[in-house]
Amino acid sequence: MIPIVSIVGRSNSGKTVLIERLIPEMKKRGYRVATIKHDAHSFEMDKEGKDSWRHAQAGAEIVTISSQKKFAMIRKTRREMPVEKIVASFMDEVDIIITEGYKSGSYPKIEVSSENKSASELLCQRDNDNLVAIVRDKETDVGDTGVPNFAFHDAAGIVDFLEQRFINVKAEMSHSVHLSVNGKKIRINRFIDNIIKKTILGMILSLKGVEKPRRVDLRIEVGKEL
Amino acid sequence: MIPIVSIVGRSNSGKTVLIERLIPEMKKRGYRVATIKHDAHSFEMDKEGKDSWRHAQAGAEIVTISSQKKFAMIRKTRREMPVEKIVASFMDEVDIIITEGYKSGSYPKIEVSSENKSASELLCQRDNDNLVAIVRDKETDVGDTGVPNFAFHDAAGIVDFLEQRFINVKAEMSHSVHLSVNGKKIRINRFIDNIIKKTILGMILSLKGVEKPRRVDLRIEVGKEL
Repeated sequence: MIPIVSIVGRSNSGKTVLIERLIPEMKKRGYRVATIKHDAHSFEMDKEGKDSWRHAQAGAEIVTISSQKKFAMIRKTRREMPVEKIVASFMDEVDIIITEGYKSGSYPKIEVSSENKSASELLCQRDNDNLVAIVRDKETDVGDTGVPNFAFHDAAGIVDFLEQRFINVKAEMSHSVHLSVNGKKIRINRFIDNIIKKTILGMILSLKGVEKPRRVDLRIEVGKEL
Repeated sequence: MIPIVSIVGRSNSGKTVLIERLIPEMKKRGYRVATIKHDAHSFEMDKEGKDSWRHAQAGAEIVTISSQKKFAMIRKTRREMPVEKIVASFMDEVDIIITEGYKSGSYPKIEVSSENKSASELLCQRDNDNLVAIVRDKETDVGDTGVPNFAFHDAAGIVDFLEQRFINVKAEMSHSVHLSVNGKKIRINRFIDNIIKKTILGMILSLKGVEKPRRVDLRIEVGKEL
């Protein structure tokens, strides 16, 4: 599984600026990064007047733009998409996923605290909220938080920490997807193995009756419509 | 399969304006619409200075924003994503997909021709390019194109045509996905059936050795990492 770390903090604590500093540092070390920004409000992503914006304005549920180098999508949702579903559906070929926000999620959290608040004033605690580090304006005493404390400008130090703690600690992943088409076994590499596994699990985890899947068997019969 | 129709035409022929007119007309009739815009150049989708734009600028491969009502993603791609992959990966819960552009694709095409060009001057021909209709400034003689001819303002007429020809001609779709988890059979509805089937087929169709799948068997063994 791709490691996921959440950067949390109060409004204007500097979450985005921190992420802007961490990404180039991770890229420099050869890691590919994806981000998920949690937006409590509604966002305007598309530029007014551009064709895709006009498709969305006209009422399209899903609007996509595809060019050689980029692909973009905006879709309406009936409720907020869980991080697990975003990761399973859209994240692949990356080494780490950084979320901005999601303080109530269960992922490991780094809290940005621009004012040097005491431990009790932080949003998160180590034990209750999976807080793994604090980033402050200046390196100060960790107080009673019990987690490492980094200075805001210390992107290298924070990425060292992320590397040791999350990126290089990949779970042993053995081949686990067995695929056959028309009765013929298809060889798949680890990358595809992982995509198929995560996609299927992502799709079925919320189905009624599915609990702690250990083994999933799936048969697809293709009708005439293909 | 969701019907896909391409709106093609030269630059500034009015493709986007036509799509802006067709979408509300289709929505009025209860259809959900998705669009795919083909961009030959590079596009700027995100607003400069917004957080997600800053994540992408900092070097993230995949940037997503999630709110209650919308989900958006921008990702870098090494080559252009084929329409088939976009549809299989990102399009669900819609009744029709309209592409803007993709004149060299194989989908049924409606050509917008703002100047009333003769048949030989059009981008597409019926037999070679799967041209199914022409939309012109004014309703004029179809000439020798052999396909229906609509006036640019006649959204209702064009949607009538789309309905008859594409939307209501759904292939018979029987339940075709059989799923069991830890040996227990899981009931799935037609919607999920369809998502699972299309997702898996979309993922495996490009694998070496996969040709004309009629039956796909897949087993997933989940390790400790879940």
